[in-house]
Amino acid sequence: MITLASDFGTPYPAAMKGVLCQRTDARLIDVSHEFPRQDIRAAAFWLRETLPYFPPATHLIVVDPGVGTDRNALVLRAGEHTLVGPDNGVLRPVARQLTDGGQLEASVIDESRLERVEPTVDSARTQVAASARDDARPASNTFHGRDVFAPAAAAVHDTPLEALEDCAFLESVATEMLVDCELPTATLEEDGARATGEVLVVDDFGNVITNVPGDVLRDHERVVANGEAVPVGETFAAVSPGERLATVGSHGYVELDVNQGRGDEAFELEVGDRVILETAVSP
Amino acid sequence: MITLASDFGTPYPAAMKGVLCQRTDARLIDVSHEFPRQDIRAAAFWLRETLPYFPPATHLIVVDPGVGTDRNALVLRAGEHTLVGPDNGVLRPVARQLTDGGQLEASVIDESRLERVEPTVDSARTQVAASARDDARPASNTFHGRDVFAPAAAAVHDTPLEALEDCAFLESVATEMLVDCELPTATLEEDGARATGEVLVVDDFGNVITNVPGDVLRDHERVVANGEAVPVGETFAAVSPGERLATVGSHGYVELDVNQGRGDEAFELEVGDRVILETAVSP
Amino acid sequence: MITLASDFGTPYPAAMKGVLCQRTDARLIDVSHEFPRQDIRAAAFWLRETLPYFPPATHLIVVDPGVGTDRNALVLRAGEHTLVGPDNGVLRPVARQLTDGGQLEASVIDESRLERVEPTVDSARTQVAASARDDARPASNTFHGRDVFAPAAAAVHDTPLEALEDCAFLESVATEMLVDCELPTATLEEDGARATGEVLVVDDFGNVITNVPGDVLRDHERVVANGEAVPVGETFAAVSPGERLATVGSHGYVELDVNQGRGDEAFELEVGDRVILETAVSP
Repeated sequence: MITLASDFGTPYPAAMKGVLCQRTDARLIDVSHEFPRQDIRAAAFWLRETLPYFPPATHLIVVDPGVGTDRNALVLRAGEHTLVGPDNGVLRPVARQLTDGGQLEASVIDESRLERVEPTVDSARTQVAASARDDARPASNTFHGRDVFAPAAAAVHDTPLEALEDCAFLESVATEMLVDCELPTATLEEDGARATGEVLVVDDFGNVITNVPGDVLRDHERVVANGEAVPVGETFAAVSPGERLATVGSHGYVELDVNQGRGDEAFELEVGDRVILETAVSP
Repeated sequence: MITLASDFGTPYPAAMKGVLCQRTDARLIDVSHEFPRQDIRAAAFWLRETLPYFPPATHLIVVDPGVGTDRNALVLRAGEHTLVGPDNGVLRPVARQLTDGGQLEASVIDESRLERVEPTVDSARTQVAASARDDARPASNTFHGRDVFAPAAAAVHDTPLEALEDCAFLESVATEMLVDCELPTATLEEDGARATGEVLVVDDFGNVITNVPGDVLRDHERVVANGEAVPVGETFAAVSPGERLATVGSHGYVELDVNQGRGDEAFELEVGDRVILETAVSP
Repeated sequence: MITLASDFGTPYPAAMKGVLCQRTDARLIDVSHEFPRQDIRAAAFWLRETLPYFPPATHLIVVDPGVGTDRNALVLRAGEHTLVGPDNGVLRPVARQLTDGGQLEASVIDESRLERVEPTVDSARTQVAASARDDARPASNTFHGRDVFAPAAAAVHDTPLEALEDCAFLESVATEMLVDCELPTATLEEDGARATGEVLVVDDFGNVITNVPGDVLRDHERVVANGEAVPVGETFAAVSPGERLATVGSHGYVELDVNQGRGDEAFELEVGDRVILETAVSP
């Protein structure tokens, strides 16, 4: 199985799927192609919260603002999973999660040794695409998802994990050399009465997902979020439709939500904003 | 085959797919994850108009504003199809359609008897998600699509229809006990000259889909819609681009549309608005 | 394999998938269902740039502003690929590309000889859809994707290419009779110092894709685009985030972009706008 994740929107993912289907019979599953554009941290968060639910698979991940620069293209073996994508940090949090103290191995993709992507070309038309590719460059400079990562993912998928290091286009690299993306952690005061964190992502419902561990809400009926008291609910429906609440999301963090509405609008919060939660008001 | 439908947007459906892939080799087909948020009636309409085109399958349906409350989680056997989702009415119209006078059987899911969803966990990191799950609760309170409905759908898919009642996590329930969602019906005057209905949904093209049966337009060249005369067309192209028309949509209801434009904007109509159609003006 | 492409948004593509799954076990791959609505030229461009990356397949393509009129429904054999869709030009550019000087054969679909689509119908409910279909019409007038093209694609997929002409519902037609959609070409001055083209499409990142061949940028460090000088970069990251640049996109054309931003907004350009590129300013 190969999963696909990107910030491409549409229809660029289809070209990646075409390349994959050319080269492997692997089952393809879309994770998302609507990650916030060029937002490495948001993608890293969603991948870490989503991919651990999959069985062992090859995960093709392209959120790549540095495409075409000298940033490396990576294949990571993380436990029983394989991750393919750019060396900009987006792979690291989910790799740690999937490895779980087990084996983490990293390789750099040598593009020049990948089998080149060859679309069906109409030789009769002024073939701008072909002419642009006919110089020494082995791939486009702006679409490595199609020209580098998809071919690598197809090849890696059809290689047993233990034989990965024999892939001719892979060169082993020390994991300490990889670019990292640490998701920020919240600060908890020792008495547990106050947590200072920030907004990690806002989901499509408008739920504001913070980095404050859900534990801080335990046994509290109300919490003060950035100065305003809101009820703590175990479910959205704990408050009336349109009312605000704090809850523990499915990922275990504190969320600031509105039942059947948008928490980001009601709390006037967006990604990166600071969130201070105070629970001293009530046991 | 398992179809998936929700109002989740992205990337939450991927976690459901991960769970499904962990547990079954079933083919997965997305119906939509862009149903209007928390709008049970809209989802019920689209499912009733869409799922009858599928071969017998398991349909995983999660539009669930009451997630985490004591609303039941259901498995319905409707003819040769199986529906899995919340007991809030969203399953009922399509269940009636798929049953077609045949067998309709309902069961409630006992969450505590479902095999628990276990993502790969990085034991080294402050595992907020795990700690939130390590108490007595068998599932998150906000993501039953992943923690309850997907596991149930996977199990049900791999069970023959006639053995469903033996599933350890299912408890039979009388169908009269289920929450219903009757889509509203239009009122037709006896002489057929006037129909009073409402807007059921607006599709992505901006076509205004009413609940007035298409028959009322038969043999008419014009119709008065909320006081304004518009031509009746068999096709969008019956009028010039940008012009309004009334037509019979692919579901058989009267639609108020604009050729190559948005009917909702031209007619200033949204879901739930009243629509009065008068056909007396012309034979 | 059957690929699906349309301007339908959601959930109409699911009804097509249901029909396909009823009739064939073919693998289904979505190309896009978010093509700009009723924009034949944009779809023709994206299909030409995307489908050549796929292995031989049946491609179901529905961008069809003339649905229900007397425009023909087509099956094109283009090299080893088969294209199914309306005769409005959307199929032609990609057909030329896939044929590559080889075999191009065209047939018109005789709807009346297609096996009719029969959804599961609840005979008990006021069956507006059924009544609308029970007259002489073999298909809806507004959803040929479901009622004509999907059934044809399923049948064609399960027919060997060389036996296509024996399909009872297909009637051969001369390719010169087909509606064409020539994508406009840019005008290049002989000294190469000036190119006059236009915006073909804007992608989801906001990148402005012109029809000017990328070659005009070769060996230049700056270009004047519509009177304003911008740097030429091989990669987005050649300029700072938020800065404008001209680059050669993955399709080989000149793009006007913003690194990690939207080129359409920065250059104030939209589809169809004229673009004049002057390269005399620098070697």
